[in-house]
Amino acid sequence: MIIVFKPDATEQHIDHVADRLRELGLKSQLSRGESRTILGVIGDERLLEHQPLSVFPGVESVTPILAPWKLAGREFQPYDTVITVDGIPIGGPRVIVMAGPCAVEKREVTAGIAHEVKAAGAAILRGGAYKPRTSPYSFQGLGREGLDFLAEAKKQTGLPVVSEILDPRDTDVFLEKADIIQIGARNMQNFELLKEVGAYDKPVLLKRGLSATIKEWLLSAEYIMSRGNRHVMLCERGIRTFETQYRNVLDLSAVPTLKALSHLPVIVDPSHATGQWRLVAPMAKAAVAAGADGLLIEVHSNPECALCDGEESIKPHRFAALMEDLKNVAQAVGRTL
Amino acid sequence: MIIVFKPDATEQHIDHVADRLRELGLKSQLSRGESRTILGVIGDERLLEHQPLSVFPGVESVTPILAPWKLAGREFQPYDTVITVDGIPIGGPRVIVMAGPCAVEKREVTAGIAHEVKAAGAAILRGGAYKPRTSPYSFQGLGREGLDFLAEAKKQTGLPVVSEILDPRDTDVFLEKADIIQIGARNMQNFELLKEVGAYDKPVLLKRGLSATIKEWLLSAEYIMSRGNRHVMLCERGIRTFETQYRNVLDLSAVPTLKALSHLPVIVDPSHATGQWRLVAPMAKAAVAAGADGLLIEVHSNPECALCDGEESIKPHRFAALMEDLKNVAQAVGRTL
Amino acid sequence: MIIVFKPDATEQHIDHVADRLRELGLKSQLSRGESRTILGVIGDERLLEHQPLSVFPGVESVTPILAPWKLAGREFQPYDTVITVDGIPIGGPRVIVMAGPCAVEKREVTAGIAHEVKAAGAAILRGGAYKPRTSPYSFQGLGREGLDFLAEAKKQTGLPVVSEILDPRDTDVFLEKADIIQIGARNMQNFELLKEVGAYDKPVLLKRGLSATIKEWLLSAEYIMSRGNRHVMLCERGIRTFETQYRNVLDLSAVPTLKALSHLPVIVDPSHATGQWRLVAPMAKAAVAAGADGLLIEVHSNPECALCDGEESIKPHRFAALMEDLKNVAQAVGRTL
Amino acid sequence: MIIVFKPDATEQHIDHVADRLRELGLKSQLSRGESRTILGVIGDERLLEHQPLSVFPGVESVTPILAPWKLAGREFQPYDTVITVDGIPIGGPRVIVMAGPCAVEKREVTAGIAHEVKAAGAAILRGGAYKPRTSPYSFQGLGREGLDFLAEAKKQTGLPVVSEILDPRDTDVFLEKADIIQIGARNMQNFELLKEVGAYDKPVLLKRGLSATIKEWLLSAEYIMSRGNRHVMLCERGIRTFETQYRNVLDLSAVPTLKALSHLPVIVDPSHATGQWRLVAPMAKAAVAAGADGLLIEVHSNPECALCDGEESIKPHRFAALMEDLKNVAQAVGRTL
Repeated sequence: MIIVFKPDATEQHIDHVADRLRELGLKSQLSRGESRTILGVIGDERLLEHQPLSVFPGVESVTPILAPWKLAGREFQPYDTVITVDGIPIGGPRVIVMAGPCAVEKREVTAGIAHEVKAAGAAILRGGAYKPRTSPYSFQGLGREGLDFLAEAKKQTGLPVVSEILDPRDTDVFLEKADIIQIGARNMQNFELLKEVGAYDKPVLLKRGLSATIKEWLLSAEYIMSRGNRHVMLCERGIRTFETQYRNVLDLSAVPTLKALSHLPVIVDPSHATGQWRLVAPMAKAAVAAGADGLLIEVHSNPECALCDGEESIKPHRFAALMEDLKNVAQAVGRTL
Repeated sequence: MIIVFKPDATEQHIDHVADRLRELGLKSQLSRGESRTILGVIGDERLLEHQPLSVFPGVESVTPILAPWKLAGREFQPYDTVITVDGIPIGGPRVIVMAGPCAVEKREVTAGIAHEVKAAGAAILRGGAYKPRTSPYSFQGLGREGLDFLAEAKKQTGLPVVSEILDPRDTDVFLEKADIIQIGARNMQNFELLKEVGAYDKPVLLKRGLSATIKEWLLSAEYIMSRGNRHVMLCERGIRTFETQYRNVLDLSAVPTLKALSHLPVIVDPSHATGQWRLVAPMAKAAVAAGADGLLIEVHSNPECALCDGEESIKPHRFAALMEDLKNVAQAVGRTL
Repeated sequence: MIIVFKPDATEQHIDHVADRLRELGLKSQLSRGESRTILGVIGDERLLEHQPLSVFPGVESVTPILAPWKLAGREFQPYDTVITVDGIPIGGPRVIVMAGPCAVEKREVTAGIAHEVKAAGAAILRGGAYKPRTSPYSFQGLGREGLDFLAEAKKQTGLPVVSEILDPRDTDVFLEKADIIQIGARNMQNFELLKEVGAYDKPVLLKRGLSATIKEWLLSAEYIMSRGNRHVMLCERGIRTFETQYRNVLDLSAVPTLKALSHLPVIVDPSHATGQWRLVAPMAKAAVAAGADGLLIEVHSNPECALCDGEESIKPHRFAALMEDLKNVAQAVGRTL
Repeated sequence: MIIVFKPDATEQHIDHVADRLRELGLKSQLSRGESRTILGVIGDERLLEHQPLSVFPGVESVTPILAPWKLAGREFQPYDTVITVDGIPIGGPRVIVMAGPCAVEKREVTAGIAHEVKAAGAAILRGGAYKPRTSPYSFQGLGREGLDFLAEAKKQTGLPVVSEILDPRDTDVFLEKADIIQIGARNMQNFELLKEVGAYDKPVLLKRGLSATIKEWLLSAEYIMSRGNRHVMLCERGIRTFETQYRNVLDLSAVPTLKALSHLPVIVDPSHATGQWRLVAPMAKAAVAAGADGLLIEVHSNPECALCDGEESIKPHRFAALMEDLKNVAQAVGRTL
């Protein structure tokens, strides 16, 4: 932590801050420059989490030096985390594709899509049973019955299932029926839900909030990990900007940045990011080229009748063609699919 | 709903859409322009919530005409909603000031601040018992004990209490101990929580999400109202932008815009919006000048030791001076304080 | 400047940076913390403008300590700059209102509006002769003839004129016909234009770029001032965000922030910021309450026929009523109008 | 154009608008829905550019149907534009790499880098002679001498040159010494400069403004094209968002979107977008995977001493390795390099 004093700060101001640091068990070192005096804090600056130093008289600015996360950081764990789900390693050399409908609607449709994405090479089945919808008048998902349909599709195809939880009171049923619990973008800072899923050993796919910084995102991962659950994967799904041409802006620079800052696997969701099925294929390829460890792709056999996000769902035959292209891109960057 | 067809759309494409509309019980009217054919949907376009028309072949764009909310809109209720809390009317000619510490910390400190803000003219006591913090290592609030301290401060001062709920499992204790339940910015789209507070008759202060549009915000109000609870007030608290000079950008244009679109009271929180105590006074005055029905202001007797957001808390004597200024500004725009 | 080294930085890495600093004539001081080593630069860190220290091996981050501007800063000049235009002081206790049409269209209309805004109490006439329009097919302004119409309106009313320059090749005519030269939002970083107007003694109204930070904005002011022209006023006119309900988001927190960082006058343009005439009055009042030194307001006698931005122009009678309200708000915050 | 009337609009309101449309030579068609009346405009809605319909009494909203550009659109020209520079086709199956230093500094350094990037497979040499710098105290470029150094490097290597123009008064020298004139992000809406380069037959590389929408960007291309110069290529270089981890967010969704809306070649600049040399390689690969027609990459033999943007420059040996990877990615998506 670096504390910069205003040009007119007095010795008393400086001493007042230094005293407070000492009380907290921290040492500090003073540098007097030509135009500013600076106090460098030596020791664990996390001790200062609860201490608003910027309101002390004479203080101009306070700049942290260390990353505010610990368990999620590469500094804590230099090697890549690999999360194994039903024998499928996520975060290793193989790029993992998770595919399926946005919302689970009917028993047969779900199983049908599962068979098709499996045939095309998907490793994991995605599907929403509980749906967070902007409007209260939109389809809210089948709930528990949707999880049953997914479980049945798994029984038929062997594909493990990822599905989104919305309410901490539903944890039990997710622990039973899902292989990966998804925390959606809107709940990235629903800390009660993070603490809840942090209490179990179940893999968690943590989506980036719509306007979450990388730093806030890693701190949300830290919420889960600090409760004991280390099986967290991060999923970039577009951020909100001024551009209205697509739903969100897929931030692929996040991929190599996260791989540098953290050891956790990084997944990319080009479907929700763009909201347009025509953009899914180019953005999926770009994600793999940028170094993503996996993809989350919406596939629907009849997008015209999808109850949720039909605009961004691709049909099974387009998904199959995309998987062929993705194999080539993965190979070009030294990965497999 | 206006459906625009691509220049190369065929008659079959147009018929296919018109047929689907008919199936849904909607009439449509065709306009053939020089460069585009347009289908105007006649009837309740909310029937189209579950129908992704933009994926139909030949369709170029789909534009809704009606606002997606109903109960929250001025069209539904032309007169202003006034919410009465312990006899204090929110949404009427008087500007209501809610003040207190960011987080409740100690019994005596809380009561002390309550006495001071009451003396200065505040009508409602604010204080956080459960705190949503970006880092798992930050102070998370006293929880239920914090609500007890607030209730005690209310007993001493008569000030009703507003406090933030984080978890739907805590509803009972909030119904008992708080007069207004606050939904924080991070939970504006925690739909399970919205549904929960929508089931009761307790006033709700709904903060705008960090990057929520006005439209999304009113739809979140609609979630609460559509469950039966009509006592919703909206609280602008700054939006996320590229500017790093202050924590968020207080969007005061939202105030007259909401007053035009909706009948609900509009509150402004200059403390969280700016994150800097020096900006609280000018922004509070600007909010009243822009037409806000109330303010939410952080006051702390010792910001240097505040466990949460000390940077943005003003001291009681500054709050008292601000209240005097606010009276003048309120009067200048035809309100009282 | 604070240079933080990576945990695995070697002594050689640190020496390499310290050596480079010495070569540049700067001293540095080393702090060895528990988890990071830090080098504080002592001396004028502007010497490092041309030196990319972050690419030196072992360097983790580089944080500047000083503001990058000099002449525009309060540290350089503690008292407020007051710019006098034809005897009218801008930046003093009186709030100055500049009003007139978005674009100058016809001789008589321009003069007519000038008479009306003067009668209502405006101190300065605004009007665009050269118009920066997003589309090449929109009305581009009357050019030199527009400046003539403004000059004639000035002759009739005595109101000094502010108008926007687009091209450095037009400087001569602006020096002759305008009293204040406006640099528009799109040209805030047109550095050649800034240098050009910096070479004269004519007052400049520098609008904030659509997505310019406060820091970039003050550096653009510094461009003008470093060429010799100290008569710069800053004009907040809304920033671009994700919100589509209004054209831009008026960032009123910029007003007190600029007044703290800089000594230059701060003007607010609620018309361009919101793009909606209904929002002009509440935002104008809010701007004065927040501490603005002046306002820039579009007034048109017949918005239905305005060739530019009719949506945001208010009619003269509404402007007159607004001026009455603004007098009250100004008084409430200790100013006059 | 679709005009929606308010629920309480009268017949007179509707007639007033219809009359105005008739005066402008446009036909209209009325649709009376259950909750709103709608007027669809038939005819060239560009006639409405100068007509602010939204201020007419009774009007609720006005929605354009057609894209506001013409020459830049795919509807105007269905096939891809290929721009040939010294025999090198830009916009065809081959991905074109433009590489070189951010700023031209010294004669020998420039020529040396030119030789190295050519050896690695670059087709065009980039280099800034006139530099737009945020601070007036930063290195502003060598100006005309820099263009001379680039011309000399071209003579030695045969690589055509792209360089940025800042001032319309410099057009002559750019026409003589540069093969492609670059319009930088800050000047995307410097319309006088756009008109100037539109008057010649020289290829133009038009960078996206820092917070420009796709729509505004294509309208800036339209400015150039409507003056006669059809040789425009678009360059995505990152947009400004709330994220501070990298300089800007590279918006690769723009690539397939522009290829759908427009026939112009699309180039991507991963160096300026990210501002970090470590991110250049993954983002360059992602850009090619997303369908970019070319790349603009900063290469410097000694980034530690670069006078501009050393942080984002990669060294020649890294550039050579990247070119090998890019060949594989290009091949994986059916292109060559």
